[in-house]
Amino acid sequence: MSSVIQNIKRTDPALIARLGAAGVATVHESQGRSGLMAANMRPIQQDMAIAGSAVTISAPPGDNWMIHVAIEQLQAGDILVLAPTSPCDMGYFGDLLATSAMARGCSALIIDAGVRDTRDLRQMGFHVWSTAVSAQGTVKETIGAVNVPIVCAGAMVQAGDVIVADDDGVCVVPRDTAETVMTKAQTRLDAEEAKRLRLASGELGLDIYDMRGRLAEKGLKYV
Amino acid sequence: MSSVIQNIKRTDPALIARLGAAGVATVHESQGRSGLMAANMRPIQQDMAIAGSAVTISAPPGDNWMIHVAIEQLQAGDILVLAPTSPCDMGYFGDLLATSAMARGCSALIIDAGVRDTRDLRQMGFHVWSTAVSAQGTVKETIGAVNVPIVCAGAMVQAGDVIVADDDGVCVVPRDTAETVMTKAQTRLDAEEAKRLRLASGELGLDIYDMRGRLAEKGLKYV
Amino acid sequence: MSSVIQNIKRTDPALIARLGAAGVATVHESQGRSGLMAANMRPIQQDMAIAGSAVTISAPPGDNWMIHVAIEQLQAGDILVLAPTSPCDMGYFGDLLATSAMARGCSALIIDAGVRDTRDLRQMGFHVWSTAVSAQGTVKETIGAVNVPIVCAGAMVQAGDVIVADDDGVCVVPRDTAETVMTKAQTRLDAEEAKRLRLASGELGLDIYDMRGRLAEKGLKYV
Amino acid sequence: MSSVIQNIKRTDPALIARLGAAGVATVHESQGRSGLMAANMRPIQQDMAIAGSAVTISAPPGDNWMIHVAIEQLQAGDILVLAPTSPCDMGYFGDLLATSAMARGCSALIIDAGVRDTRDLRQMGFHVWSTAVSAQGTVKETIGAVNVPIVCAGAMVQAGDVIVADDDGVCVVPRDTAETVMTKAQTRLDAEEAKRLRLASGELGLDIYDMRGRLAEKGLKYV
Amino acid sequence: MSSVIQNIKRTDPALIARLGAAGVATVHESQGRSGLMAANMRPIQQDMAIAGSAVTISAPPGDNWMIHVAIEQLQAGDILVLAPTSPCDMGYFGDLLATSAMARGCSALIIDAGVRDTRDLRQMGFHVWSTAVSAQGTVKETIGAVNVPIVCAGAMVQAGDVIVADDDGVCVVPRDTAETVMTKAQTRLDAEEAKRLRLASGELGLDIYDMRGRLAEKGLKYV
Amino acid sequence: MSSVIQNIKRTDPALIARLGAAGVATVHESQGRSGLMAANMRPIQQDMAIAGSAVTISAPPGDNWMIHVAIEQLQAGDILVLAPTSPCDMGYFGDLLATSAMARGCSALIIDAGVRDTRDLRQMGFHVWSTAVSAQGTVKETIGAVNVPIVCAGAMVQAGDVIVADDDGVCVVPRDTAETVMTKAQTRLDAEEAKRLRLASGELGLDIYDMRGRLAEKGLKYV
Repeated sequence: MSSVIQNIKRTDPALIARLGAAGVATVHESQGRSGLMAANMRPIQQDMAIAGSAVTISAPPGDNWMIHVAIEQLQAGDILVLAPTSPCDMGYFGDLLATSAMARGCSALIIDAGVRDTRDLRQMGFHVWSTAVSAQGTVKETIGAVNVPIVCAGAMVQAGDVIVADDDGVCVVPRDTAETVMTKAQTRLDAEEAKRLRLASGELGLDIYDMRGRLAEKGLKYV
Repeated sequence: MSSVIQNIKRTDPALIARLGAAGVATVHESQGRSGLMAANMRPIQQDMAIAGSAVTISAPPGDNWMIHVAIEQLQAGDILVLAPTSPCDMGYFGDLLATSAMARGCSALIIDAGVRDTRDLRQMGFHVWSTAVSAQGTVKETIGAVNVPIVCAGAMVQAGDVIVADDDGVCVVPRDTAETVMTKAQTRLDAEEAKRLRLASGELGLDIYDMRGRLAEKGLKYV
Repeated sequence: MSSVIQNIKRTDPALIARLGAAGVATVHESQGRSGLMAANMRPIQQDMAIAGSAVTISAPPGDNWMIHVAIEQLQAGDILVLAPTSPCDMGYFGDLLATSAMARGCSALIIDAGVRDTRDLRQMGFHVWSTAVSAQGTVKETIGAVNVPIVCAGAMVQAGDVIVADDDGVCVVPRDTAETVMTKAQTRLDAEEAKRLRLASGELGLDIYDMRGRLAEKGLKYV
Repeated sequence: MSSVIQNIKRTDPALIARLGAAGVATVHESQGRSGLMAANMRPIQQDMAIAGSAVTISAPPGDNWMIHVAIEQLQAGDILVLAPTSPCDMGYFGDLLATSAMARGCSALIIDAGVRDTRDLRQMGFHVWSTAVSAQGTVKETIGAVNVPIVCAGAMVQAGDVIVADDDGVCVVPRDTAETVMTKAQTRLDAEEAKRLRLASGELGLDIYDMRGRLAEKGLKYV
Repeated sequence: MSSVIQNIKRTDPALIARLGAAGVATVHESQGRSGLMAANMRPIQQDMAIAGSAVTISAPPGDNWMIHVAIEQLQAGDILVLAPTSPCDMGYFGDLLATSAMARGCSALIIDAGVRDTRDLRQMGFHVWSTAVSAQGTVKETIGAVNVPIVCAGAMVQAGDVIVADDDGVCVVPRDTAETVMTKAQTRLDAEEAKRLRLASGELGLDIYDMRGRLAEKGLKYV
Repeated sequence: MSSVIQNIKRTDPALIARLGAAGVATVHESQGRSGLMAANMRPIQQDMAIAGSAVTISAPPGDNWMIHVAIEQLQAGDILVLAPTSPCDMGYFGDLLATSAMARGCSALIIDAGVRDTRDLRQMGFHVWSTAVSAQGTVKETIGAVNVPIVCAGAMVQAGDVIVADDDGVCVVPRDTAETVMTKAQTRLDAEEAKRLRLASGELGLDIYDMRGRLAEKGLKYV
């Protein structure tokens, strides 16, 4: 249980960037509405969208020792994803750890627990989605694991999965489906662009999607 | 139950604008502390205050079909107000629907459920108060109703009621009392302005409101 | 129980300012991880850090009368700290009370209840940490107490204690330990500065803190 | 706003009893899935099902004065339904008020707030569904209204509506639809009885409801 | 901070028993509505009322070592009261610790955290009020303190204070006011008994408390 | 994604029974504190402990169609485990489905959503752990999957895993480790029995576990 898996597979950075640009809502739809983290996983900053490869951390409650271990495994563009083994709101991560992670090219953390020094993190450009903000620190007494599969805010995450995060939340794309998901996402984005223009011009969804007949069939009455 | 009520009465736009400028706290006081939505109805943007006529939507959980139907009923200055028939946190509304609503002159949504594409919505200038943010989409399978009375975040809303929303939350002003409420609000605003000047100059509320006697009577002791 | 304690001891303003600059997370660590308010005590503004002497208010639920009484006790640099005697989400405090408090040199409120006029408060530069935002007003019927010990968001606060608040939350420093806490905080800040430079240069926490041996001892395996 | 409406219409006791026997889930389905109170409206006792005519109370937060006023309006078989005008968890109701209500033939309370003396209430056979249990008492300072329409735990309640409550929660049946709803409920109960026998004998819902074809059509695969 | 205070003062057992019989709601009223723990402090058993002297435990999050230390300090009739120094839902206490506590004559625990083996505890007759139930165990790594003042579920508790707990929640009576509080409680109980008889006979609170005039004055209208 | 996996492996019934008798807390400890569902997964009955093989259901929000499909896959002793693909509090399961499941020899459901007819379920002896109770019904419009891996209340569940549930919550034991876990659990149970006798006789944990030296070393002071 207490292992550090060192060689994980990652996804092509260009593909990751495209998934990030597509955004959480589109990516989530494109993979059949799976992989979305729970709604209490919220950003500490606004109007930021990112994507990267997950380096996962399974940590004991109130113990952030494994973050130091995980940072050694980071490559540029990675995102730290931490789930405690038991619910915990304490502040596992602050500006010193962010400094260390940024030195390895990582500038984001997804954590099903608390963070602190949030003002510093925003000023440093280190992006965080967390389920809590808390100044309460942790200890370094008990080991956990790095790059093992975890359940984070209700979503399964494997090391190397693509994490997409924006103001709507966080979505996990399994590494081996990332390309397929992006293909579907692109189709969706293209279709949406066309629809957006028609809707912006004042055309109604009722007509664009030809809904009037089906609504009447279902019994909708206009009064 | 599954009707679209088409001809609803609205309130004079000038009156609506004055209610919006008065703000939620003042309007709420002026109508006897009624009509306030629950505290979990929160804005996705900051420092924005609006008012408009409610176009109501009663929607099944996880089904946003009726929003398309409601958009056809919108007039410039209207505000969409959606309540699901059962609690639901899913993301009913995103940038495409906002595009469509804005084309009809509506730039705000009050929803006792989730929204998505929140960054896009902020950038478009579409204003939202919601009880959730979620990338999880909905379906279009079951009909609901438009412009029927609904209970949204604990407050009764009838189509054509005036919705006032700002950073403090959302308040509903029944259409037929809007003028009376505004008259009271104006009196209140005028009185507050005078008090604000006295308070800003350092005069105490204890003296302005002549509270010292009554406090002593109730037993307050200075030590 | 219903007293106003008038002459409270405060801490040296220079010491208070240094505690404020150290910030909540550092101060909290430096006093043995005590004094932190609960995590639902959140700022209504972003990227603001303050410190000041507590003027405490014990108020009945839904009754803000004592705030007027407390304002008379304020000196420049004080912070109002209010706890209701029973849980209450109502909006005890708005722009008029802020105007009055600011006229006395106080520009912050910590409240285990609701506030309103939040947009105005931000624009006035009055800083608030609260457990709720609500337009719902209160009455002035029942007396409470000023400058008595209170439990606010789970933390004990005595009048004259130093309140430190930033984006991470709120921490209470007992007046008589403020100097000792700041000494420890300074040591901590100095140590952190050195570590920050090493971490920023890419050195790992694993090496700086000499963790590798102890991790191996505890059974951590690299795979 | 501060009225006591004295002559309310009630429903036939036999019809009320039949609705109570049908239970919340069945009644809720039979009126088109409307009228259900929020899920945090929970019983203080177990395995109890009741029905009665609503005597409604709109009460200020933390003020139970109107309960005394409402008790005078009670007739045998009535149920008190209280909603505070602002969220409040305090204990509005205890054993003395229950004694008074029982003397008028009322043995149940639905309250979107707290109750106390819960052990006594259970021992007296007074039934309660509440959103909180709290020993914190209230005052008698401010008037409210009796038998006006209220929104209780998210559901609209008019005086004289039929309240159905059991371990699943509370459902409101508008008085003028009570008979129609019961007719539909009876049809449903009869149909369920037949299905129950078939299911108990081991027949599958897949076959009874002829679902296999539609499932295959939707794409369900057996592996 | 890490002390075990060994000689604490307790209250007369007969007085404690009378406070327990009075119950939480009455005791809470009799001491001016103070000392009530938060509403999420709930019993794991039903229809049980107790009272005893507090032996307090300040414990690190997720660490139950201090419970063993506290058990040595127990005398017959004591109640363990535990508050973690940071919010924690883990299961600090189970059947083995209950066995040990019962051997010292203690049969109740008040804990602002989780317990486990709840079925066993009920069967053993060990009574618990907790803010969580969780099978997740704790460690024994870090020391805390015994019989120091703590804040438990929002209430201040000193060692030797009288804890009164029943189905309504938990109330703390400071040791040096216990006698005064009981005197007021007895007056209250006597007065209630008389009122209960009048109310049970059908007399109305409106008449017993002579409320009709004051209600009319406040503007209550009968329609 | 929409598959029904028909042939799943189960565990030896005798082993399952032993795990059930060991209980959630012991089993959870014995597998390294993993597999515990979140604390809001609560029983609708009291003092019941069970174990069985999981038949998993991945269901759309508000759609219980897949339960009928899953029931066909049940064998005697199985437990249904349902997770919606998006958070949902609606009542997926009531007395008719329980009747059908019991006819196949299944008498328990673990559901990260709501149930209804809870009184009937208790009377039938059908056991439920759920995250909600709600009379709000669901539809049968969209397919899901049966016996695929799911995340239920934060825990990963594979079809055929052993579910252990009692008043403390629910724990998942992966099928291929069930025997090892039970061996460790038995060792633990044996050790606990010996300790229980010593503790019951009044011996202290401080002495049995030889803690005094280590406590002194850590700095614990007796005052």
